[in-house]
Amino acid sequence: MSLEEALQESKESILDALAQDDNRMLEGLLPELRSADIAAILSDIAEEDEDQPTVFALLESLSLERRANVFGYLSSDLQAELAELMPDDRLLLLLEEMSGDERADLFNVLGEDRREGLLRRMAHREREDLKRLASYEEGTAGAVMTSDYVAIPSDLTVSQALMRVRQTAPDAETVYQIYMIDEQGRLAGTMSLRQLIVARPGAKVEDLMIKDVIQLGVDAPQEEVARLVAHYDLLAVPVVDEEEHLVGIVTHDDAMDVVEAEATEDIHKGASVGQLEGGVSRVRLWSLYRKRIVWLVLLVFGNLFSGAGIAYFENTIAAQVALVFFLPLLIGSGGNAGAQAATLTVRGMATGDIGVKDWGKLMGRELLVAGALGLTMALAVAPIGIIRGGEMLALVVATSMISIVLFGSLLGMCLPFLLDRLGWDPATASAPLVTTMIDACGVVIYFTIATAILMG
Amino acid sequence: MSLEEALQESKESILDALAQDDNRMLEGLLPELRSADIAAILSDIAEEDEDQPTVFALLESLSLERRANVFGYLSSDLQAELAELMPDDRLLLLLEEMSGDERADLFNVLGEDRREGLLRRMAHREREDLKRLASYEEGTAGAVMTSDYVAIPSDLTVSQALMRVRQTAPDAETVYQIYMIDEQGRLAGTMSLRQLIVARPGAKVEDLMIKDVIQLGVDAPQEEVARLVAHYDLLAVPVVDEEEHLVGIVTHDDAMDVVEAEATEDIHKGASVGQLEGGVSRVRLWSLYRKRIVWLVLLVFGNLFSGAGIAYFENTIAAQVALVFFLPLLIGSGGNAGAQAATLTVRGMATGDIGVKDWGKLMGRELLVAGALGLTMALAVAPIGIIRGGEMLALVVATSMISIVLFGSLLGMCLPFLLDRLGWDPATASAPLVTTMIDACGVVIYFTIATAILMG
Repeated sequence: MSLEEALQESKESILDALAQDDNRMLEGLLPELRSADIAAILSDIAEEDEDQPTVFALLESLSLERRANVFGYLSSDLQAELAELMPDDRLLLLLEEMSGDERADLFNVLGEDRREGLLRRMAHREREDLKRLASYEEGTAGAVMTSDYVAIPSDLTVSQALMRVRQTAPDAETVYQIYMIDEQGRLAGTMSLRQLIVARPGAKVEDLMIKDVIQLGVDAPQEEVARLVAHYDLLAVPVVDEEEHLVGIVTHDDAMDVVEAEATEDIHKGASVGQLEGGVSRVRLWSLYRKRIVWLVLLVFGNLFSGAGIAYFENTIAAQVALVFFLPLLIGSGGNAGAQAATLTVRGMATGDIGVKDWGKLMGRELLVAGALGLTMALAVAPIGIIRGGEMLALVVATSMISIVLFGSLLGMCLPFLLDRLGWDPATASAPLVTTMIDACGVVIYFTIATAILMG
Repeated sequence: MSLEEALQESKESILDALAQDDNRMLEGLLPELRSADIAAILSDIAEEDEDQPTVFALLESLSLERRANVFGYLSSDLQAELAELMPDDRLLLLLEEMSGDERADLFNVLGEDRREGLLRRMAHREREDLKRLASYEEGTAGAVMTSDYVAIPSDLTVSQALMRVRQTAPDAETVYQIYMIDEQGRLAGTMSLRQLIVARPGAKVEDLMIKDVIQLGVDAPQEEVARLVAHYDLLAVPVVDEEEHLVGIVTHDDAMDVVEAEATEDIHKGASVGQLEGGVSRVRLWSLYRKRIVWLVLLVFGNLFSGAGIAYFENTIAAQVALVFFLPLLIGSGGNAGAQAATLTVRGMATGDIGVKDWGKLMGRELLVAGALGLTMALAVAPIGIIRGGEMLALVVATSMISIVLFGSLLGMCLPFLLDRLGWDPATASAPLVTTMIDACGVVIYFTIATAILMG
């Protein structure tokens, strides 16, 4: 049984219990489930039945600890809706129980008034911690990090350090990577719990710790965090402020969420869809419209260039209407080859496989591959050219195919580099953008060749 | 300094040392670097300068342990090339030092003869372990798992268990999740090291362990592995054979690699590029050609339908050549909207955000959004229609725009579901495929409307 099927089954049992108003059955079901699963099921109910009060009641039936765990897995939209239904003191309890990073995320979805009211009721230290975590810009290391880590002075012995780890264990996000700080709170070193448990109990931590720690600034973009964690296979990466003070860590699970979210964003950008908040099935229709219309309308005006090209060659077309037959084929093929080249380049740049320095080499490779692609496709369409309009038309079509595919591929490959150079996201070189550009140029290439060969 | 810049700098120092034949400088440089970085630099040298012997020499200058670590980070192509340069006994030493999963991966890139020769020289247990790990099909849990995990009998006490963990620590991939097995080697439970270090030393592991373990079969697809690790925020997930014997674990770092690789594959598929082995800058030109040409030629024939549609309406076009002006604009816009819809659906299905059950709901949403998109775009082009050919042409263009965008979006949204139903990968619904289909249908829609309004 796959994950989805298992979740669907559990969800149906819960809905059954709810329909029969069978509290005892519910109380038997929920503790059996894992927090991540309860969250997935509640999200599903909220989304399909728009029944936030039921979701709220189900949440309230859980223990506080459980509720905090489940809450951390919910989307920020749903968190905001549920927080609306919650009186201040319940919300405060929940916030206190949640882990540092999740608490800050939840806090950020609340309205300004609500936030002020809640802050006033918190203890000083908690308030400062929360304000700090909630203040980092979205998409930075600061915004994804947690403040629940294990930090110890570096002059402890191994056995003292282990004792500290045991004491901190219940609250820390991870205890498997431990950080050493100096008196000013600056990051001085790190050790894994694995190293700690095999070390001699009397040894000094500072003699064993790794001093050259892989670390990030609070303002580092979250992609950089994810890339460091992936590149070095880390369990967690420490985050420091401008004065090198340790202020948080990003754990592997949060880094994995970033990888997924960044991939989704890049995939959407690849189809000229703006960044959505939340999944496509949940996001509001108005927001979905806005994220799609901007590029679509821009591309409409881009497509006008194709029209203008056609208008310019109106005499050629009027003399040889058969030329129009091959128009979608030629510009479409160029667009497809260009979209392939652009996508390969954009993804290569996103994963770090390609850098700006590789531009020349890739250009040479693309020239060879696109030449071969164009030739193959020209051979595929030439016979149709002969059938539709004789050998001269076949020559026009074949020559145009090679030229357009070659031009399209090189444009698709170079555009991401160019955008990057201009300080734009290379992923802006989407399939629709590349296709539209190649359409316009393809029209001109095709009819120029046609005019030269047929009308000359 | 970003990760890329730091790597570039280290690489230049190494190349300098090599150019000056300065071994002492090299010996000073390499130990400073992390294994993942050495691997990245060596890959870069191998790729840019095609200088495998230099890479080989650099590798050989490292300690065996270091070399094994670095080797694990290299691409399988480069591993194969370097293994060619290595005599059997060096290769055997290296294999023995590598971790279970990486050893099996390296083994799999060797030629059959080489494999047989190496197996004959291994100890029985090692040989069986390697043969088993190397036998799993690529892309399954079995192929990404490692056999270096900590498994203990469940009747140990906490302090006995901790002792076992300490003994196994040097060889295990992770010691932070520990698995309990019964006498037959079947998975019976799991405990985290965190739970273990805070537990009472005399307590029995079987009383503390989680018995309902999240686990996978060896044949589970690697996407499923990655999705479980991400969904439950796991450090590792255990893999069992048909008889529930624990045979391996997949750790979070390998799961993250799977997430990245799957995203790359989906992004490439979204532009109709077949699955590449290795990055775009490294893959052989012939392979790149093959992975791109198949769909390009298929789409050429798809585009012929657009041509056939145009041929069918030749009389309408001959009577109103101005219609051709709007052709790329209309079919291009439909294609762009359709590519957006397809991409949103494909990614939603890949992340588990959308299931087959959501089809009806998404259909309704897409109808509303696409209707609004089409209307907006129709309003954008209508004035141009008036300028180019008067009000009747504007009416044709606006009506066609709404119809084509609506049709294209619904097709783009439904196609992934349809493909999934037919047992295909939904990601096959690429932007080029969707665009080509909409081009052909768009031609028919446009000229049918034009014929009805203008020639009626």
